[in-house]
Amino acid sequence: MCQLLGMNSAKPADLRFSLTGFAARGGLTDHHADGFGIGFFEDKACRLFVDAQPAATSPVAEMLKHYAIKSRNVVSHIRKATQGDPMRLENCHPFTRELWGRHWLFAHNGDLIDYQPESAGNYQPVGTTDSERAFCALMEELKRISPREPCSADIVFDTLCAMSERTAEFGVFNYLLSNGQSLFAHCSTRLWYLVREWPFSNASLVDADLSMDFAQTNNPEDRLCVVATQPLTRNENWQQMQPGQLLWMEDGRIVRQAQLEVSEAIRQKHAASLACV
Amino acid sequence: MCQLLGMNSAKPADLRFSLTGFAARGGLTDHHADGFGIGFFEDKACRLFVDAQPAATSPVAEMLKHYAIKSRNVVSHIRKATQGDPMRLENCHPFTRELWGRHWLFAHNGDLIDYQPESAGNYQPVGTTDSERAFCALMEELKRISPREPCSADIVFDTLCAMSERTAEFGVFNYLLSNGQSLFAHCSTRLWYLVREWPFSNASLVDADLSMDFAQTNNPEDRLCVVATQPLTRNENWQQMQPGQLLWMEDGRIVRQAQLEVSEAIRQKHAASLACV
Repeated sequence: MCQLLGMNSAKPADLRFSLTGFAARGGLTDHHADGFGIGFFEDKACRLFVDAQPAATSPVAEMLKHYAIKSRNVVSHIRKATQGDPMRLENCHPFTRELWGRHWLFAHNGDLIDYQPESAGNYQPVGTTDSERAFCALMEELKRISPREPCSADIVFDTLCAMSERTAEFGVFNYLLSNGQSLFAHCSTRLWYLVREWPFSNASLVDADLSMDFAQTNNPEDRLCVVATQPLTRNENWQQMQPGQLLWMEDGRIVRQAQLEVSEAIRQKHAASLACV
Repeated sequence: MCQLLGMNSAKPADLRFSLTGFAARGGLTDHHADGFGIGFFEDKACRLFVDAQPAATSPVAEMLKHYAIKSRNVVSHIRKATQGDPMRLENCHPFTRELWGRHWLFAHNGDLIDYQPESAGNYQPVGTTDSERAFCALMEELKRISPREPCSADIVFDTLCAMSERTAEFGVFNYLLSNGQSLFAHCSTRLWYLVREWPFSNASLVDADLSMDFAQTNNPEDRLCVVATQPLTRNENWQQMQPGQLLWMEDGRIVRQAQLEVSEAIRQKHAASLACV
Protein backbone atom coordinates (compact mmCIF):
# COMPACT_ATOMS: atom_id res chain seq x y z
CA MET A 1 0.00 0.00 0.00
CA CYS A 2 1.21 3.50 -0.79
CA GLN A 3 1.45 6.20 1.83
CA LEU A 4 -0.07 9.66 1.64
CA LEU A 5 0.85 12.85 3.47
CA GLY A 6 -0.99 16.15 3.13
CA MET A 7 -0.77 19.49 4.88
CA ASN A 8 -2.98 22.57 4.90
CA SER A 9 -1.87 25.52 6.98
CA ALA A 10 -3.11 28.98 7.96
CA LYS A 11 0.36 30.37 7.27
CA PRO A 12 3.32 29.10 5.21
CA ALA A 13 4.81 26.25 7.22
CA ASP A 14 7.98 24.20 7.10
CA LEU A 15 7.12 20.51 6.76
CA ARG A 16 10.61 19.08 7.27
CA PHE A 17 9.86 17.52 10.68
CA SER A 18 6.93 15.49 9.36
CA LEU A 19 8.77 14.75 6.15
CA THR A 20 11.66 13.18 8.03
CA GLY A 21 9.33 10.59 9.53
CA PHE A 22 7.36 10.17 6.32
CA ALA A 23 10.46 9.71 4.11
CA ALA A 24 11.71 6.97 6.46
CA ARG A 25 8.68 4.93 5.40
CA GLY A 26 10.06 4.85 1.86
CA GLY A 27 12.47 1.99 2.39
CA LEU A 28 13.60 2.23 6.02
CA THR A 29 10.73 1.67 8.48
CA ASP A 30 8.34 0.41 5.83
CA HIS A 31 8.53 -1.22 2.42
CA HIS A 32 7.12 1.49 0.12
CA ALA A 33 10.26 1.67 -1.94
CA ASP A 34 9.05 2.40 -5.45
CA GLY A 35 9.70 6.14 -5.53
CA PHE A 36 8.15 9.19 -3.99
CA GLY A 37 6.82 12.61 -4.82
CA ILE A 38 5.98 15.84 -3.04
CA GLY A 39 4.34 19.02 -4.27
CA PHE A 40 4.53 22.35 -2.45
CA PHE A 41 2.13 25.14 -3.32
CA GLU A 42 3.21 28.74 -3.34
CA ASP A 43 -0.08 30.55 -3.88
CA LYS A 44 -1.60 29.33 -7.19
CA ALA A 45 1.45 27.44 -8.42
CA CYS A 46 3.00 24.25 -7.14
CA ARG A 47 6.50 22.93 -7.18
CA LEU A 48 6.64 19.19 -7.66
CA PHE A 49 9.60 16.98 -6.77
CA VAL A 50 9.40 13.35 -7.81
CA ASP A 51 11.95 10.58 -7.88
CA ALA A 52 11.80 6.93 -8.88
CA GLN A 53 14.33 6.19 -6.12
CA PRO A 54 13.07 5.29 -2.63
CA ALA A 55 12.42 8.31 -0.40
CA ALA A 56 14.85 6.94 2.20
CA THR A 57 17.81 7.12 -0.23
CA SER A 58 16.77 9.59 -2.96
CA PRO A 59 19.05 12.63 -3.50
CA VAL A 60 15.92 14.72 -4.06
CA ALA A 61 14.44 13.65 -0.70
CA GLU A 62 17.79 14.33 0.94
CA MET A 63 17.88 17.86 -0.49
CA LEU A 64 14.33 18.50 0.74
CA LYS A 65 15.25 17.46 4.29
CA HIS A 66 17.66 20.40 4.39
CA TYR A 67 15.87 22.98 2.25
CA ALA A 68 13.13 24.77 4.19
CA ILE A 69 10.40 25.19 1.57
CA LYS A 70 7.52 26.92 3.32
CA SER A 71 4.08 26.22 1.97
CA ARG A 72 0.42 26.40 2.97
CA ASN A 73 -0.55 23.30 0.99
CA VAL A 74 1.53 20.16 0.50
CA VAL A 75 0.68 16.80 -1.02
CA SER A 76 3.13 13.92 -0.81
CA HIS A 77 3.15 10.26 -1.74
CA ILE A 78 5.42 7.27 -1.25
CA ARG A 79 4.80 4.56 -3.76
CA LYS A 80 4.39 0.81 -3.51
CA ALA A 81 3.41 0.07 -7.08
CA THR A 82 0.30 -1.98 -7.77
CA GLN A 83 -0.60 -0.76 -11.27
CA GLY A 84 1.78 0.69 -13.87
CA ASP A 85 5.54 0.35 -14.13
CA PRO A 86 6.95 1.79 -10.87
CA MET A 87 10.16 3.01 -12.44
CA ARG A 88 8.43 5.23 -14.98
CA LEU A 89 8.30 8.90 -14.11
CA GLU A 90 4.84 9.37 -15.64
CA ASN A 91 3.44 6.98 -13.01
CA CYS A 92 4.83 8.89 -10.01
CA HIS A 93 2.37 10.73 -7.76
CA PRO A 94 1.42 13.46 -7.10
CA PHE A 95 0.03 14.32 -10.53
CA THR A 96 -0.52 17.91 -11.53
CA ARG A 97 -2.77 19.75 -13.99
CA GLU A 98 -3.88 23.33 -14.54
CA LEU A 99 -7.54 24.27 -14.13
CA TRP A 100 -8.95 27.81 -14.03
CA GLY A 101 -5.43 29.28 -14.03
CA ARG A 102 -4.31 27.35 -10.93
CA HIS A 103 -2.29 24.21 -10.47
CA TRP A 104 -4.01 21.19 -8.90
CA LEU A 105 -2.18 18.32 -7.21
CA PHE A 106 -3.51 14.82 -6.67
CA ALA A 107 -2.14 11.70 -4.97
CA HIS A 108 -3.95 8.41 -4.50
CA ASN A 109 -3.57 5.32 -2.40
CA GLY A 110 -5.49 2.26 -3.49
CA ASP A 111 -6.46 0.30 -6.53
CA LEU A 112 -9.36 0.97 -8.89
CA ILE A 113 -10.36 -2.17 -10.77
CA ASP A 114 -11.57 -2.02 -14.39
CA TYR A 115 -11.81 1.73 -14.07
CA GLN A 116 -11.95 3.40 -17.51
CA PRO A 117 -13.86 6.68 -17.14
CA GLU A 118 -15.12 8.49 -20.22
CA SER A 119 -13.28 11.66 -21.08
CA ALA A 120 -13.94 14.76 -23.15
CA GLY A 121 -10.19 14.79 -23.81
CA ASN A 122 -9.37 18.01 -21.95
CA TYR A 123 -7.26 16.09 -19.43
CA GLN A 124 -5.50 12.99 -20.73
CA PRO A 125 -3.34 10.69 -18.62
CA VAL A 126 0.38 10.74 -19.43
CA GLY A 127 1.06 7.46 -17.59
CA THR A 128 -0.78 4.18 -17.17
CA THR A 129 -2.11 4.34 -13.59
CA ASP A 130 -5.72 4.12 -12.43
CA SER A 131 -4.82 7.06 -10.16
CA GLU A 132 -4.01 9.52 -12.94
CA ARG A 133 -7.16 8.40 -14.80
CA ALA A 134 -9.20 9.23 -11.68
CA PHE A 135 -7.50 12.63 -11.32
CA CYS A 136 -8.13 13.47 -15.00
CA ALA A 137 -11.79 12.45 -14.53
CA LEU A 138 -12.13 14.82 -11.53
CA MET A 139 -10.55 17.69 -13.46
CA GLU A 140 -12.70 16.91 -16.51
CA GLU A 141 -15.89 17.04 -14.42
CA LEU A 142 -14.95 20.35 -12.76
CA LYS A 143 -14.14 21.80 -16.19
CA ARG A 144 -17.45 20.51 -17.57
CA ILE A 145 -19.34 22.27 -14.77
CA SER A 146 -17.41 25.51 -15.25
CA PRO A 147 -15.28 25.62 -18.43
CA ARG A 148 -13.42 28.90 -17.87
CA GLU A 149 -14.09 30.57 -14.52
CA PRO A 150 -13.64 28.96 -11.10
CA CYS A 151 -16.93 27.78 -9.64
CA SER A 152 -17.57 28.33 -5.92
CA ALA A 153 -15.63 26.18 -3.45
CA ASP A 154 -18.92 24.65 -2.29
CA ILE A 155 -19.69 23.48 -5.81
CA VAL A 156 -16.17 22.02 -6.05
CA PHE A 157 -16.81 20.14 -2.80
CA ASP A 158 -20.23 18.88 -3.94
CA THR A 159 -18.69 17.71 -7.21
CA LEU A 160 -15.95 15.87 -5.34
CA CYS A 161 -18.60 14.21 -3.16
CA ALA A 162 -20.46 12.89 -6.21
CA MET A 163 -17.32 11.85 -8.08
CA SER A 164 -15.68 10.21 -5.03
CA GLU A 165 -18.76 8.16 -4.23
CA ARG A 166 -18.95 6.97 -7.84
CA THR A 167 -15.22 6.27 -8.21
CA ALA A 168 -14.97 4.43 -4.87
CA GLU A 169 -17.30 1.78 -6.32
CA PHE A 170 -14.29 0.65 -8.40
CA GLY A 171 -12.04 0.00 -5.42
CA VAL A 172 -9.92 1.69 -2.76
CA PHE A 173 -9.92 5.45 -3.30
CA ASN A 174 -7.98 7.18 -0.53
CA TYR A 175 -6.80 10.45 -2.04
CA LEU A 176 -5.50 13.96 -1.41
CA LEU A 177 -6.29 16.86 -3.73
CA SER A 178 -5.23 20.48 -3.46
CA ASN A 179 -5.44 23.64 -5.56
CA GLY A 180 -3.21 25.70 -3.27
CA GLN A 181 -6.14 27.08 -1.27
CA SER A 182 -7.98 24.00 -0.10
CA LEU A 183 -6.87 20.49 0.71
CA PHE A 184 -9.43 17.74 0.15
CA ALA A 185 -8.99 14.26 1.64
CA HIS A 186 -11.16 11.26 0.88
CA CYS A 187 -10.95 8.02 2.87
CA SER A 188 -11.90 4.60 1.56
CA THR A 189 -9.96 2.49 4.00
CA ARG A 190 -7.21 4.26 5.87
CA LEU A 191 -6.44 7.92 6.47
CA TRP A 192 -5.83 9.89 9.68
CA TYR A 193 -5.84 13.62 10.32
CA LEU A 194 -4.69 16.00 12.96
CA VAL A 195 -5.36 19.70 13.62
CA ARG A 196 -2.23 21.14 15.20
CA GLU A 197 -3.04 24.41 16.95
CA TRP A 198 -2.57 26.47 20.08
CA PRO A 199 -1.66 25.41 22.74
CA PHE A 200 1.06 23.53 20.87
CA SER A 201 2.74 20.56 22.48
CA ASN A 202 5.74 18.33 22.12
CA ALA A 203 5.55 15.53 19.54
CA SER A 204 7.82 12.59 18.68
CA LEU A 205 8.00 10.95 15.28
CA VAL A 206 6.83 7.34 15.06
CA ASP A 207 9.37 6.51 12.32
CA ALA A 208 12.49 8.33 13.48
CA ASP A 209 14.17 9.24 16.73
CA LEU A 210 13.17 12.90 16.60
CA SER A 211 10.99 15.14 18.76
CA MET A 212 9.85 18.71 18.39
CA ASP A 213 8.30 21.15 20.81
CA PHE A 214 5.85 23.00 18.57
CA ALA A 215 5.21 25.53 21.35
CA GLN A 216 8.75 26.81 20.73
CA THR A 217 8.36 27.19 16.96
CA ASN A 218 4.74 28.33 16.58
CA ASN A 219 2.67 31.39 17.42
CA PRO A 220 -0.91 31.36 18.74
CA GLU A 221 -2.27 32.23 15.30
CA ASP A 222 -0.50 29.27 13.64
CA ARG A 223 -2.75 26.36 12.82
CA LEU A 224 -2.46 23.48 10.41
CA CYS A 225 -4.04 20.20 9.41
CA VAL A 226 -1.94 17.14 8.67
CA VAL A 227 -3.44 14.11 6.90
CA ALA A 228 -1.55 10.84 6.63
CA THR A 229 -2.12 7.17 5.90
CA GLN A 230 -0.86 6.41 9.40
CA PRO A 231 -0.22 8.81 12.29
CA LEU A 232 3.25 10.32 11.98
CA THR A 233 3.70 11.31 15.62
CA ARG A 234 3.07 9.95 19.10
CA ASN A 235 1.34 12.05 21.76
CA GLU A 236 -0.82 14.08 19.36
CA ASN A 237 -4.54 13.83 18.83
CA TRP A 238 -4.80 11.94 15.50
CA GLN A 239 -8.35 11.23 14.30
CA GLN A 240 -9.10 8.22 12.17
CA MET A 241 -11.19 9.01 9.09
CA GLN A 242 -14.17 6.81 8.30
CA PRO A 243 -14.74 4.98 5.01
CA GLY A 244 -16.63 7.40 2.76
CA GLN A 245 -15.55 10.49 4.70
CA LEU A 246 -14.50 13.50 2.66
CA LEU A 247 -12.77 16.45 4.36
CA TRP A 248 -12.29 19.98 3.06
CA MET A 249 -9.52 21.87 4.82
CA GLU A 250 -8.70 25.55 4.46
CA ASP A 251 -6.59 27.94 6.56
CA GLY A 252 -5.53 25.00 8.73
CA ARG A 253 -9.03 23.98 9.80
CA ILE A 254 -11.80 21.65 8.64
CA VAL A 255 -14.36 23.87 6.91
CA ARG A 256 -16.74 21.19 5.65
CA GLN A 257 -17.02 17.44 5.62
CA ALA A 258 -19.32 14.82 4.21
CA GLN A 259 -20.08 11.19 4.88
CA LEU A 260 -20.57 9.52 1.50
CA GLU A 261 -22.54 6.37 0.87
CA VAL A 262 -20.43 3.19 0.91
CA SER A 263 -22.21 0.04 -0.21
CA GLU A 264 -22.08 -3.06 1.98
CA ALA A 265 -20.32 -5.00 -0.80
CA ILE A 266 -17.55 -2.38 -0.96
CA ARG A 267 -17.24 -2.29 2.87
CA GLN A 268 -16.72 -6.04 3.00
CA LYS A 269 -14.21 -5.98 0.14
CA HIS A 270 -12.19 -3.24 1.84
CA ALA A 271 -12.26 -5.00 5.21
CA ALA A 272 -10.83 -8.11 3.54
CA SER A 273 -8.09 -6.14 1.78
CA LEU A 274 -7.12 -4.32 5.01
CA ALA A 275 -6.76 -7.69 6.73
CA CYS A 276 -4.19 -8.69 4.08
CA VAL A 277 -1.93 -5.63 4.32
CA MET B 1 18.13 39.16 -20.59
CA CYS B 2 17.31 35.61 -19.55
CA GLN B 3 19.38 32.65 -20.61
CA LEU B 4 18.09 29.50 -22.27
CA LEU B 5 19.62 26.05 -22.48
CA GLY B 6 18.10 23.11 -24.34
CA MET B 7 19.28 19.62 -25.19
CA ASN B 8 17.99 16.94 -27.53
CA SER B 9 19.84 13.65 -27.65
CA ALA B 10 19.74 10.34 -29.52
CA LYS B 11 20.19 8.49 -26.20
CA PRO B 12 19.62 9.52 -22.58
CA ALA B 13 22.46 11.87 -21.71
CA ASP B 14 23.86 13.41 -18.55
CA LEU B 15 23.78 17.20 -18.82
CA ARG B 16 25.79 18.00 -15.69
CA PHE B 17 28.87 19.29 -17.56
CA SER B 18 26.88 21.89 -19.53
CA LEU B 19 24.74 22.65 -16.49
CA THR B 20 27.80 23.56 -14.43
CA GLY B 21 28.67 26.30 -16.90
CA PHE B 22 25.07 27.36 -17.37
CA ALA B 23 24.30 27.56 -13.63
CA ALA B 24 27.34 29.82 -13.14
CA ARG B 25 25.54 32.40 -15.28
CA GLY B 26 22.84 32.64 -12.65
CA GLY B 27 24.66 35.02 -10.34
CA LEU B 28 28.38 34.21 -10.75
CA THR B 29 29.63 34.95 -14.28
CA ASP B 30 26.52 36.84 -15.31
CA HIS B 31 23.70 38.76 -13.64
CA HIS B 32 20.65 36.57 -14.31
CA ALA B 33 19.94 36.12 -10.64
CA ASP B 34 16.14 35.94 -10.43
CA GLY B 35 15.73 32.19 -10.18
CA PHE B 36 16.10 29.27 -12.52
CA GLY B 37 14.31 26.21 -13.76
CA ILE B 38 15.12 22.98 -15.54
CA GLY B 39 12.88 20.24 -16.89
CA PHE B 40 14.12 16.75 -17.78
CA PHE B 41 11.99 14.48 -19.90
CA GLU B 42 11.82 10.78 -19.29
CA ASP B 43 9.80 9.55 -22.26
CA LYS B 44 6.40 11.32 -22.24
CA ALA B 45 6.71 12.85 -18.77
CA CYS B 46 8.95 15.60 -17.54
CA ARG B 47 10.41 16.37 -14.18
CA LEU B 48 10.63 20.05 -13.47
CA PHE B 49 12.89 21.69 -10.89
CA VAL B 50 12.41 25.39 -10.30
CA ASP B 51 13.74 27.73 -7.66
CA ALA B 52 13.35 31.43 -7.04
CA GLN B 53 16.93 31.48 -5.72
CA PRO B 54 19.79 32.21 -8.16
CA ALA B 55 21.12 29.11 -9.95
CA ALA B 56 24.61 29.80 -8.60
CA THR B 57 23.47 29.42 -4.97
CA SER B 58 20.20 27.43 -5.08
CA PRO B 59 20.09 24.15 -3.09
CA VAL B 60 18.09 22.65 -5.96
CA ALA B 61 20.75 23.58 -8.52
CA GLU B 62 23.42 22.23 -6.16
CA MET B 63 21.58 18.89 -5.88
CA LEU B 64 21.27 18.68 -9.67
CA LYS B 65 25.03 19.19 -10.12
CA HIS B 66 25.57 15.92 -8.26
CA TYR B 67 22.56 13.88 -9.31
CA ALA B 68 23.01 12.34 -12.77
CA ILE B 69 19.54 12.62 -14.27
CA LYS B 70 19.78 11.19 -17.77
CA SER B 71 17.39 12.54 -20.32
CA ARG B 72 16.91 12.83 -24.08
CA ASN B 73 15.22 16.24 -23.86
CA VAL B 74 16.02 19.04 -21.45
CA VAL B 75 14.83 22.65 -21.27
CA SER B 76 16.40 25.08 -18.81
CA HIS B 77 16.11 28.77 -18.06
CA ILE B 78 17.88 31.30 -15.87
CA ARG B 79 15.77 34.33 -15.17
CA LYS B 80 16.42 38.04 -15.29
CA ALA B 81 12.91 39.27 -14.72
CA THR B 82 11.41 41.82 -17.07
CA GLN B 83 7.67 41.12 -16.65
CA GLY B 84 5.96 39.57 -13.62
CA ASP B 85 7.19 39.38 -10.03
CA PRO B 86 10.48 37.41 -10.18
CA MET B 87 10.05 35.89 -6.74
CA ARG B 88 6.74 34.23 -7.55
CA LEU B 89 6.92 30.56 -8.38
CA GLU B 90 4.16 30.81 -11.00
CA ASN B 91 6.41 33.11 -13.06
CA CYS B 92 9.37 30.70 -13.15
CA HIS B 93 10.23 29.06 -16.48
CA PRO B 94 10.07 26.44 -17.89
CA PHE B 95 6.28 26.15 -17.90
CA THR B 96 4.60 22.82 -18.40
CA ARG B 97 1.23 21.63 -19.68
CA GLU B 98 -0.24 18.33 -20.83
CA LEU B 99 -1.39 17.94 -24.44
CA TRP B 100 -2.38 14.64 -26.13
CA GLY B 101 -1.27 12.65 -23.07
CA ARG B 102 2.28 14.07 -23.04
CA HIS B 103 3.92 16.81 -21.06
CA TRP B 104 5.18 19.85 -22.93
CA LEU B 105 7.86 22.24 -21.64
CA PHE B 106 8.40 25.82 -22.70
CA ALA B 107 10.96 28.50 -21.80
CA HIS B 108 11.21 31.97 -23.30
CA ASN B 109 13.76 34.73 -23.45
CA GLY B 110 12.50 38.15 -24.46
CA ASP B 111 9.67 40.53 -23.96
CA LEU B 112 6.32 40.56 -25.76
CA ILE B 113 4.72 43.98 -25.62
CA ASP B 114 0.92 44.39 -25.32
CA TYR B 115 0.54 40.70 -26.05
CA GLN B 116 -2.91 39.46 -25.01
CA PRO B 117 -3.80 36.48 -27.22
CA GLU B 118 -7.37 35.23 -27.37
CA SER B 119 -7.94 31.92 -25.68
CA ALA B 120 -10.56 29.18 -25.78
CA GLY B 121 -9.78 28.63 -22.09
CA ASN B 122 -8.25 25.16 -22.39
CA TYR B 123 -4.87 26.46 -21.26
CA GLN B 124 -4.93 29.37 -18.83
CA PRO B 125 -1.84 31.09 -17.45
CA VAL B 126 -1.18 30.55 -13.73
CA GLY B 127 1.25 33.46 -13.49
CA THR B 128 1.46 36.92 -15.01
CA THR B 129 4.21 36.62 -17.63
CA ASP B 130 3.95 37.27 -21.36
CA SER B 131 5.93 34.00 -21.73
CA GLU B 132 3.29 31.76 -20.15
CA ARG B 133 0.60 33.52 -22.20
CA ALA B 134 2.56 32.71 -25.37
CA PHE B 135 2.98 29.07 -24.29
CA CYS B 136 -0.73 28.71 -23.54
CA ALA B 137 -1.52 30.22 -26.95
CA LEU B 138 0.74 27.65 -28.67
CA MET B 139 -0.89 24.76 -26.76
CA GLU B 140 -4.36 26.18 -27.47
CA GLU B 141 -3.65 26.33 -31.21
CA LEU B 142 -2.30 22.76 -31.34
CA LYS B 143 -5.36 21.56 -29.41
CA ARG B 144 -7.66 23.49 -31.76
CA ILE B 145 -6.07 21.77 -34.77
CA SER B 146 -6.31 18.33 -33.16
CA PRO B 147 -8.42 18.23 -29.98
CA ARG B 148 -7.71 14.65 -28.81
CA GLU B 149 -5.16 12.76 -30.91
CA PRO B 150 -1.62 13.93 -31.68
CA CYS B 151 -1.32 15.44 -35.13
CA SER B 152 1.75 14.64 -37.22
CA ALA B 153 5.07 16.19 -36.19
CA ASP B 154 5.15 18.07 -39.50
CA ILE B 155 1.81 19.71 -38.72
CA VAL B 156 3.13 20.63 -35.25
CA PHE B 157 6.15 22.25 -36.91
CA ASP B 158 4.04 24.12 -39.48
CA THR B 159 1.79 25.37 -36.67
CA LEU B 160 4.81 26.56 -34.69
CA CYS B 161 6.08 28.38 -37.80
CA ALA B 162 2.80 30.26 -38.17
CA MET B 163 2.42 31.00 -34.46
CA SER B 164 6.06 32.05 -33.98
CA GLU B 165 5.97 34.45 -36.90
CA ARG B 166 2.77 36.01 -35.55
CA THR B 167 3.95 36.18 -31.92
CA ALA B 168 7.37 37.60 -32.80
CA GLU B 169 5.59 40.70 -34.10
CA PHE B 170 4.98 41.57 -30.42
CA GLY B 171 8.64 41.56 -29.44
CA VAL B 172 11.61 39.31 -28.74
CA PHE B 173 10.55 35.67 -28.91
CA ASN B 174 13.54 33.39 -28.41
CA TYR B 175 12.10 30.14 -27.08
CA LEU B 176 12.61 26.42 -26.49
CA LEU B 177 9.74 23.94 -26.60
CA SER B 178 9.82 20.18 -26.11
CA ASN B 179 7.35 17.33 -25.81
CA GLY B 180 9.94 14.73 -24.86
CA GLN B 181 10.47 13.62 -28.47
CA SER B 182 11.33 16.81 -30.30
CA LEU B 183 13.01 20.01 -29.24
CA PHE B 184 11.98 23.17 -31.09
CA ALA B 185 14.04 26.36 -30.91
CA HIS B 186 13.00 29.73 -32.27
CA CYS B 187 15.40 32.67 -32.53
CA SER B 188 14.36 36.31 -32.54
CA THR B 189 17.64 37.84 -31.52
CA ARG B 190 20.12 35.47 -29.92
CA LEU B 191 20.40 31.69 -29.83
CA TRP B 192 23.26 29.33 -30.71
CA TYR B 193 23.26 25.61 -31.36
CA LEU B 194 25.75 22.81 -31.60
CA VAL B 195 25.52 19.23 -32.85
CA ARG B 196 27.91 17.18 -30.75
CA GLU B 197 28.69 13.90 -32.53
CA TRP B 198 31.40 11.46 -33.55
CA PRO B 199 34.33 12.10 -33.64
CA PHE B 200 33.94 13.72 -30.21
CA SER B 201 36.52 16.21 -29.02
CA ASN B 202 37.66 17.97 -25.90
CA ALA B 203 35.65 21.01 -24.77
CA SER B 204 36.17 23.64 -22.07
CA LEU B 205 33.40 25.58 -20.40
CA VAL B 206 33.31 29.32 -21.00
CA ASP B 207 31.88 30.03 -17.52
CA ALA B 208 33.84 27.63 -15.31
CA ASP B 209 37.30 26.14 -15.16
CA LEU B 210 36.23 22.72 -16.40
CA SER B 211 37.04 20.63 -19.46
CA MET B 212 35.74 17.33 -20.72
CA ASP B 213 37.01 14.94 -23.34
CA PHE B 214 33.74 13.74 -24.89
CA ALA B 215 35.64 11.06 -26.85
CA GLN B 216 36.22 9.31 -23.50
CA THR B 217 32.57 9.37 -22.40
CA ASN B 218 30.69 8.87 -25.67
CA ASN B 219 30.19 6.10 -28.21
CA PRO B 220 30.07 6.55 -32.02
CA GLU B 221 26.26 6.26 -31.98
CA ASP B 222 25.87 9.06 -29.40
CA ARG B 223 24.74 12.36 -30.84
CA LEU B 224 23.08 15.41 -29.33
CA CYS B 225 22.07 18.96 -30.03
CA VAL B 226 22.66 21.73 -27.51
CA VAL B 227 20.95 25.12 -27.87
CA ALA B 228 21.91 28.07 -25.70
CA THR B 229 21.61 31.83 -25.57
CA GLN B 230 25.38 32.02 -25.72
CA PRO B 231 27.92 29.26 -26.51
CA LEU B 232 28.70 27.26 -23.37
CA THR B 233 32.05 25.86 -24.50
CA ARG B 234 35.19 26.94 -26.29
CA ASN B 235 36.64 24.87 -29.15
CA GLU B 236 33.32 23.46 -30.38
CA ASN B 237 31.48 24.31 -33.56
CA TRP B 238 28.63 26.55 -32.27
CA GLN B 239 26.32 27.93 -34.97
CA GLN B 240 24.55 31.22 -34.50
CA MET B 241 20.83 31.09 -35.30
CA GLN B 242 19.35 33.79 -37.49
CA PRO B 243 16.40 36.03 -36.54
CA GLY B 244 13.27 34.15 -37.60
CA GLN B 245 14.98 30.76 -37.72
CA LEU B 246 13.03 27.84 -36.26
CA LEU B 247 14.79 24.50 -35.65
CA TRP B 248 13.22 21.11 -35.07
CA MET B 249 15.58 18.64 -33.41
CA GLU B 250 14.99 14.93 -32.90
CA ASP B 251 17.33 12.05 -32.05
CA GLY B 252 20.16 14.54 -31.62
CA ARG B 253 19.99 15.98 -35.12
CA ILE B 254 18.25 18.82 -36.97
CA VAL B 255 15.36 17.21 -38.86
CA ARG B 256 13.73 20.34 -40.28
CA GLN B 257 14.20 24.07 -40.14
CA ALA B 258 12.44 27.14 -41.42
CA GLN B 259 13.34 30.76 -42.00
CA LEU B 260 10.32 32.81 -40.95
CA GLU B 261 9.47 36.27 -42.17
CA VAL B 262 10.79 39.07 -39.94
CA SER B 263 9.60 42.56 -40.82
CA GLU B 264 12.13 45.34 -41.22
CA ALA B 265 10.55 47.27 -38.34
CA ILE B 266 11.03 44.29 -36.01
CA ARG B 267 14.64 43.75 -37.22
CA GLN B 268 15.52 47.33 -36.42
CA LYS B 269 13.84 47.20 -33.02
CA HIS B 270 15.74 44.02 -32.11
CA ALA B 271 19.06 45.39 -33.33
CA ALA B 272 18.54 48.39 -31.06
CA SER B 273 17.65 46.21 -28.04
CA LEU B 274 20.70 43.96 -28.62
CA ALA B 275 22.91 47.00 -28.64
CA CYS B 276 21.62 47.87 -25.15
CA VAL B 277 22.27 44.49 -23.50
